[in-house]
Amino acid sequence: MYGAGDVRVENVPDPALQEPTDALVRVLRSCICGSDLWPYGSMPASEKGRRVGHEFLGVVEDVGADASGLKAGDVVVAPFVWADNTCDFCAEGLQTSCRHGGQWGVDGVDGGQGEAVRVPQAQGTLVKLPVAEDSALLPSLLTLSDVFCTGHHAAVSAGVSPRTTVTVIGDGAVGLSAVLAAKRLGAERILLMGRHKDRTDLGREFGATDVIAERGDEGIARIRELTGGDGTHTVLECVGTRHAIEMALGVARDGGVVSRVGAPQYTEVPMDFGTLMRNITLTGGVAPARAYIEELLPDVLDGRIDPGRVFDRTISLEDVPDGYRAMADREALKVLIRP
Amino acid sequence: MYGAGDVRVENVPDPALQEPTDALVRVLRSCICGSDLWPYGSMPASEKGRRVGHEFLGVVEDVGADASGLKAGDVVVAPFVWADNTCDFCAEGLQTSCRHGGQWGVDGVDGGQGEAVRVPQAQGTLVKLPVAEDSALLPSLLTLSDVFCTGHHAAVSAGVSPRTTVTVIGDGAVGLSAVLAAKRLGAERILLMGRHKDRTDLGREFGATDVIAERGDEGIARIRELTGGDGTHTVLECVGTRHAIEMALGVARDGGVVSRVGAPQYTEVPMDFGTLMRNITLTGGVAPARAYIEELLPDVLDGRIDPGRVFDRTISLEDVPDGYRAMADREALKVLIRP
Repeated sequence: MYGAGDVRVENVPDPALQEPTDALVRVLRSCICGSDLWPYGSMPASEKGRRVGHEFLGVVEDVGADASGLKAGDVVVAPFVWADNTCDFCAEGLQTSCRHGGQWGVDGVDGGQGEAVRVPQAQGTLVKLPVAEDSALLPSLLTLSDVFCTGHHAAVSAGVSPRTTVTVIGDGAVGLSAVLAAKRLGAERILLMGRHKDRTDLGREFGATDVIAERGDEGIARIRELTGGDGTHTVLECVGTRHAIEMALGVARDGGVVSRVGAPQYTEVPMDFGTLMRNITLTGGVAPARAYIEELLPDVLDGRIDPGRVFDRTISLEDVPDGYRAMADREALKVLIRP
Repeated sequence: MYGAGDVRVENVPDPALQEPTDALVRVLRSCICGSDLWPYGSMPASEKGRRVGHEFLGVVEDVGADASGLKAGDVVVAPFVWADNTCDFCAEGLQTSCRHGGQWGVDGVDGGQGEAVRVPQAQGTLVKLPVAEDSALLPSLLTLSDVFCTGHHAAVSAGVSPRTTVTVIGDGAVGLSAVLAAKRLGAERILLMGRHKDRTDLGREFGATDVIAERGDEGIARIRELTGGDGTHTVLECVGTRHAIEMALGVARDGGVVSRVGAPQYTEVPMDFGTLMRNITLTGGVAPARAYIEELLPDVLDGRIDPGRVFDRTISLEDVPDGYRAMADREALKVLIRP
């Protein structure tokens, strides 16, 4: 990515092992994230550009001496940050704050939207998948890299359970994943705020019981009308705008929890005297996907959930620039890449 | 209170039962709250004025027909909002959002800083105390009305336990109560931010292991220095200023919780991209004291905790205006009133 609207497919040097803890992974599937659209919309022009992509699964091609447990031929998924999975933060399930971890696409690490990736801290980062390279489950397994785990993180952080009502704000891939995650955690009432019918239709299939097209004060009033005036116990904010976080606080029931996973395009949140009197909690954050993959994997393998349905377009590497355009124009919900 | 700096002691009509759910309580002890100092500092002048005081304990003098379980002569404590203690919010322990509750000093309900109070929803609101009218425990029992329960709420909401490090911001009566509450919940490392030595000395006796006099960026740097660079798992914000909430976010460890109980003098909190990446939770609120009284009462009765030590001055009703002045001038930490 060289700037807003400027994504180019280029030849770069083949990655190679650098550290004994590295592994080399040939990418089978990658995808474009809603969060990639923020720099796609606003990144200042850059001569050097930057690698992009932080969601991928693939086949191990080579393994460093200290990356035990992995071997060439293993099919693996990578969470959207790399981590040693042994430090105190990782042990607490917060691999996004790993003391020896980092992000894809920066500091000499490859991005996921490419043919191959050098994976640092491979033993901690990668999770083996018991499937073949041509498995029909690859799209759903790829969502464990970020998007479904992000929806799950929103729901878990909010404390979604069979006893909680849920509002999900946003009908993008994260919002729909949050609906599916809330349903999986037993929520019986899931109110989805969104206005793209094809997306909210998938939201209904994922478990949404109500769809609210209204926004702002009208949206808040509608949610309150549907919940006896109270709002919902949990609110999963899956957009990231100031507008969305304001709605989220507005529809939270007293004592309720707003969980935010949308990348904030704001710097301040209106947590004022009123939210104090109502004991509103604001939680969530960037999802430690690595902490959730083993737990969610069996449900994907057994077909109990099919989070890969958020992909509605598949492209090759050459078409990645058009994939960005299609997602930015809302022509596509989420774009799968087959290198 | 007729305006900033203008508190008057006046004769008002004696309260009487109005509803069958009422009780009439003669006040034995009341006190001035740090939150009373906000209107004392800024309330616009008013001809009518308003009743003040929301912390009191006393003796039941008369009971309505539907306030069962209470009888004349009972010594009782009132939490700082009244509530039916039976609605769904109360059942969840959020009596501050009771569907049939309300605040002291407004809408025809008396304030606690007076000789007697008509208590609405008396059966749900009042908690009987197994002590005599002249018990030496009255000051500590009075803190169950608000200040100690508020510190406890901060600690409970933050998830304080033997496994969490704690920062307490503020050496006022709520901050010191939060220290005592954190200690009671098993915290072994409690860092108290405050700069009034007589107060932080009491904080050390309540359980603070470190006292940090620095503020702002220096205060944040000091806490990080004392915690290996990480900050603490939990942060109890007991002041209410923008300055304090910024410090609170700055000293929270990744994945940590900031619990706020200081009455916010701000409307916006900087929960930006950085706090999302660090998975910081912002929780807390006005304390549902009623939910905690039964749990905390045995520790006060047995003398295991002595939260009444936050009172460092005792006055009569006539001296209430000077009591406000003394607290506002920081001459007194917290003022006990003996009508």
